[in-house]
Amino acid sequence: MYRDSKLRTITKTISWRIWATLTTTLLVYLFTGELKTAIEVGLLEMVAKLLLYYFHERLWDHLSFGKREFPGFVLWINGIPRSGKTTVAGLVYKKLKNRKLKLQLLDSHDVRPLFPETGFGHEEVNTHIKRVGHLAAMLEKNGISCIASFVSPFRESREFIRSQANNFIEVHLDNDPETISRFDPSGFYDKARKGDFQHVPGLHFPFEDSVAPELNIDMRSKTPEQAATEIFQYVKNRFEL
Amino acid sequence: MYRDSKLRTITKTISWRIWATLTTTLLVYLFTGELKTAIEVGLLEMVAKLLLYYFHERLWDHLSFGKREFPGFVLWINGIPRSGKTTVAGLVYKKLKNRKLKLQLLDSHDVRPLFPETGFGHEEVNTHIKRVGHLAAMLEKNGISCIASFVSPFRESREFIRSQANNFIEVHLDNDPETISRFDPSGFYDKARKGDFQHVPGLHFPFEDSVAPELNIDMRSKTPEQAATEIFQYVKNRFEL
Repeated sequence: MYRDSKLRTITKTISWRIWATLTTTLLVYLFTGELKTAIEVGLLEMVAKLLLYYFHERLWDHLSFGKREFPGFVLWINGIPRSGKTTVAGLVYKKLKNRKLKLQLLDSHDVRPLFPETGFGHEEVNTHIKRVGHLAAMLEKNGISCIASFVSPFRESREFIRSQANNFIEVHLDNDPETISRFDPSGFYDKARKGDFQHVPGLHFPFEDSVAPELNIDMRSKTPEQAATEIFQYVKNRFEL
Repeated sequence: MYRDSKLRTITKTISWRIWATLTTTLLVYLFTGELKTAIEVGLLEMVAKLLLYYFHERLWDHLSFGKREFPGFVLWINGIPRSGKTTVAGLVYKKLKNRKLKLQLLDSHDVRPLFPETGFGHEEVNTHIKRVGHLAAMLEKNGISCIASFVSPFRESREFIRSQANNFIEVHLDNDPETISRFDPSGFYDKARKGDFQHVPGLHFPFEDSVAPELNIDMRSKTPEQAATEIFQYVKNRFEL
């Protein structure tokens, strides 16, 4: 809920009065040809209308008619580990924040205090992703758009979230372990192959691609900045930002 | 984020023009004593100002200066089982919803899909309540006020939530198993005494009262409606609704 402060109303009143009184004075002058009369009517109008306008504004501030709330969306950024989800999500967040949207970034870090440590088995990941989806839908319902970046390899849980949200936007950052390994200083996939990490989607078990994600971005040929711009443009066009 | 629809701006423009042009016409008439001139100036002003006002409104709709967002709060309704928390929370929700606040009701039912089934042991309840607190604080941070009703017998977890929220309002619905048993057709406490329920605070282990809850309501002498009214009045006064 937003309410105008009295300072806003006063400033707006003065802003309007300058334009309105100048117009009135000009009109009376053009109409009568008398500069003195024009200025006198202008001054008189100024005094009378300042108060009237102020109270008209305060009244309208309490009428919700025609105040449209931005609907909110769930932007679901998905991909195999190290595909660039967190980086891209951060960049999209910054771009959208400039548009004064209500936004909540959701990633493992944000939701860790909410959910107990979750394992990486099929069932556990599926349940965890669904829980995050419930949370995102609750936020969206209240007008808060979410940018969520999670490794969500199972079609079932993604379709569940789609069914919960009003405006679900699935973004798939397409990449493969070989390409990522070439640029990844942490050597995640090399370590995973040696057995340091288990249950890695795209390596130990298939990552279930979506049939029709809203956006499919090939990260082999795009920088995170380019990917973020593509996502931002999609959201901007879809919601007429 | 709220934006004015064009219909709102058009309606507001017409509303203003009626008042403004009537004032102008009256002033010119009082000033010149000529009815014809007064009406002519009024008509001329009406045409010119309609457009000017419309665009002035559209411009100001994009200025966020002085648009104050309601801060949000976490209203934490607490008490032993069957003390009336859910009923009171529902009534408060209805009263506040009429004030066009952004509100989210949080109770076991709402958060069950978010959190896995949680047991009733000390540690488990403590952790669960803290998680709900995290969620409530996340909602509050985004301008959504929460009405939460949970059996939260441990001072530690309540103080944790107080530390997370900006505006934490603790309401204690004071009652005792003996009084509740007299009016409870489900016979909850009788069953609990026979061993059907374990870990019941106020019966099997002490319910840790708060030192200074914002509101302490004696449910032995008040109806849920009276309790809800008391809570509503507190919120209304504190946030100048």
